[in-house]
Amino acid sequence: MTTEELVIGVDIGGTNTTVGLVDRNGHLHDDATVPTRADEAAPRLIARLDESIRGLLARRPAARMKGIGIGAPNANYYRGTVESPPNLSWKGVTDVVGLFRRYSEVPVVITNDANAAAIGELLFGAGKGLKDFIVITLGTGLGSGLIVNGELVYGHDGFAGELGHMTARPGGRECGCGRRGCLETYCSATGICRTVYELLADRRAESELRGIAFNDLTAKMISDAAERGDTIAREAFAVTGEILGTKLADSVVHTSPAAIILSGGLTAAGTLIFEPTALHLERHLLNIFKGKVKLLPSGLKERGAGVLGAAALAWTELEKSHSR
Amino acid sequence: MTTEELVIGVDIGGTNTTVGLVDRNGHLHDDATVPTRADEAAPRLIARLDESIRGLLARRPAARMKGIGIGAPNANYYRGTVESPPNLSWKGVTDVVGLFRRYSEVPVVITNDANAAAIGELLFGAGKGLKDFIVITLGTGLGSGLIVNGELVYGHDGFAGELGHMTARPGGRECGCGRRGCLETYCSATGICRTVYELLADRRAESELRGIAFNDLTAKMISDAAERGDTIAREAFAVTGEILGTKLADSVVHTSPAAIILSGGLTAAGTLIFEPTALHLERHLLNIFKGKVKLLPSGLKERGAGVLGAAALAWTELEKSHSR
Repeated sequence: MTTEELVIGVDIGGTNTTVGLVDRNGHLHDDATVPTRADEAAPRLIARLDESIRGLLARRPAARMKGIGIGAPNANYYRGTVESPPNLSWKGVTDVVGLFRRYSEVPVVITNDANAAAIGELLFGAGKGLKDFIVITLGTGLGSGLIVNGELVYGHDGFAGELGHMTARPGGRECGCGRRGCLETYCSATGICRTVYELLADRRAESELRGIAFNDLTAKMISDAAERGDTIAREAFAVTGEILGTKLADSVVHTSPAAIILSGGLTAAGTLIFEPTALHLERHLLNIFKGKVKLLPSGLKERGAGVLGAAALAWTELEKSHSR
Repeated sequence: MTTEELVIGVDIGGTNTTVGLVDRNGHLHDDATVPTRADEAAPRLIARLDESIRGLLARRPAARMKGIGIGAPNANYYRGTVESPPNLSWKGVTDVVGLFRRYSEVPVVITNDANAAAIGELLFGAGKGLKDFIVITLGTGLGSGLIVNGELVYGHDGFAGELGHMTARPGGRECGCGRRGCLETYCSATGICRTVYELLADRRAESELRGIAFNDLTAKMISDAAERGDTIAREAFAVTGEILGTKLADSVVHTSPAAIILSGGLTAAGTLIFEPTALHLERHLLNIFKGKVKLLPSGLKERGAGVLGAAALAWTELEKSHSR
């Protein structure tokens, strides 16, 4: 029996948190999911996660646990903290890395979920072999992570890569950040629902979506309707892709990526979202970038993407500390 | 007499080209300027520059020349080329690094002028000690260079940092790139002249600028008029700063810079351009960035900025090759 070197990937979400054992090749050997319990204090969650981790490791006596990587909303890489997370009751700044260190002596590192996704694509996914690309996660909001010269961009304060808060429409839709017109108010699972409602108000066309209340509408219902030929649903995807592709042309002039990788729930709609995004990205690119920027789907399996990203972060940090 | 280690900075412009001897501390020891002669073939210019360099070195027998750094419009760092420069008659792709190597065995490196300006600020200017910042050059166009984690961002093809071609106004002013509404059509020496003409058309206010033809108008005339209280000129600066500050808030979400450094001819107008830019940048920043991003003037002397940037590029490459 040979020793397996593994890291723990931890994906903290608003509803569930998943921990998984991941090797250097991106294989998820085992995982466990626990309810996050958004109203519970952070130390309680970390204690429960430690139990889960011990449970996973107990089943693999040959495993050598090398480090822990965590992806969480509003996490700060430099400070090891989660700061006023939108979907959890944790007040102010929580030292999540410190809490994990109570239980383990291996290196612990954290970053926000979209940054973790970008590192996941770099090590294990569609970004393998690329040195410059951008990952866009289209979930409840629009998250992003920028890879420049083979490394994640953290910026001077650890908050780089908030492309969901580029202004897509000056004076446009209200955003959770307190401003208006942010890209994520249009291009996200929530954004496309808002677009459907706008279209239902504006158009007279029949639509199966006219029978669904705003609170019940999901991006999945819209893509299902679009597949069945619903014109409102199809137009909602066209509008979403147009706004996303147009705006991503502004991102390309910043870091000149070889690819933009789209991931997250909304990308399950496939060509419905990829086609209009690719079309309008290409149309709006500065001439020197035309034909050079690929639009790719995630190379990570949807179910394990969060854990793989967090694990990739842990592997990256271990390799950085070795090369120092 | 001790040996001085120096590099050559070469700043190729549409009208003049300057070569200078620069030490590792950013002191410009000597320089010479020759007319670029835009209609002349590239090898002729390089031959004349070699003569100038020999002239400068002849006056400093103790100097040891370590490398050559070149800043030029449309230059590509990876390929060592200048590609279809807008203000020179050089057709297609010119191997500028190769041409310099005919005359010298020291390392030669090239990048576009705005990228060179960013490296200049990093080594010798307002970016000293910072690891993440953006340099914006407000000249005929709007150039830019991004520093991330202490290094210039080149992107996968060497063309990163074209922020002048973010779309500031969809369907707006015609840009030299063939599209419409690019940031540089508003925020540059040329852009502010266009804004003045728009204002002169729209407003009934008296203005000393009403007597000046479009082809004769310069940014300097506008700032002089503004200093004398001309309301059209003042408003032109306010509009320019508003568009620039608003749009730079979109750049901040990409790389989370500690500072944005404004340089180039238009910044000679001082508070006229800095104040409205800072105001609207701060107003449009995402909450997590508010109060964190400084707006700074260049730390390089205007006259030598181009040469210092090119020299900084040479020093950076020498240090990279030593650390390999």
